[in-house]
Amino acid sequence: MCEFVIMPPIPARPTELHELGRAFAQHYYTKICVGRQELDQLYAPDSVMTFEGLECSGREAVMAKLKALTFKSIHYSITSIDCQPTGLPNTVFLMVLGQLKTDEDPPHSFCQTFILRGFEASFFIVNDVFRMVLHNA
Amino acid sequence: MCEFVIMPPIPARPTELHELGRAFAQHYYTKICVGRQELDQLYAPDSVMTFEGLECSGREAVMAKLKALTFKSIHYSITSIDCQPTGLPNTVFLMVLGQLKTDEDPPHSFCQTFILRGFEASFFIVNDVFRMVLHNA
Repeated sequence: MCEFVIMPPIPARPTELHELGRAFAQHYYTKICVGRQELDQLYAPDSVMTFEGLECSGREAVMAKLKALTFKSIHYSITSIDCQPTGLPNTVFLMVLGQLKTDEDPPHSFCQTFILRGFEASFFIVNDVFRMVLHNA
Repeated sequence: MCEFVIMPPIPARPTELHELGRAFAQHYYTKICVGRQELDQLYAPDSVMTFEGLECSGREAVMAKLKALTFKSIHYSITSIDCQPTGLPNTVFLMVLGQLKTDEDPPHSFCQTFILRGFEASFFIVNDVFRMVLHNA
């Protein structure tokens, strides 16, 4: 079972950058729900993901970590997506704040940040940091 | 009144990158507390800050926003600092998760992400995104 929701408010006058962030989030969190193996198309051989403090370098290590997640169901509710240019060609900085609920656990806040780089017609993830918003771990 | 605390656990074998992140956070959040006007040394003419969804481009706009914050006291408690290399020379990606308490308000979670770039002996902030972890704003 899977659900993905971007909460209002939607920007009244969305910019191209915010549209890109929204489209990326839609794609990424849908794939986490229903096709995690296909996320390998989003990571590159030199991508870096830090997941709850554990650093994974390279597509293979990132995918091994993502595939090892054991939940049966996940629901995402995205509260905000902040996008910025980086001053580098085709490189975008993106911070996502939201809540997620896995299986029978209560909902928890999370924060995930990406640096995306364009290549031909698509983007891949250069950097990815994920944290649940928990202060007593 | 001001307080700044980095919570344990401290990494058992801190890397150079994590030491840099920790030193940056120590400097940044101390200055937010006791010398906000000096933060202008950390922002560049082309820095971008998105503060609770409001984008400020350039040092002047960023500093105007930071100086306009109206709290009298602020206490920070930093839960985690995740640092990554970006593949670009002297450029570091940093995500900070913590709690803050202003004046008589209850503590709230926050997330702040930076891209830092080295220049001579110091770093400046290229990108900065700040969000309180609130889902019903």
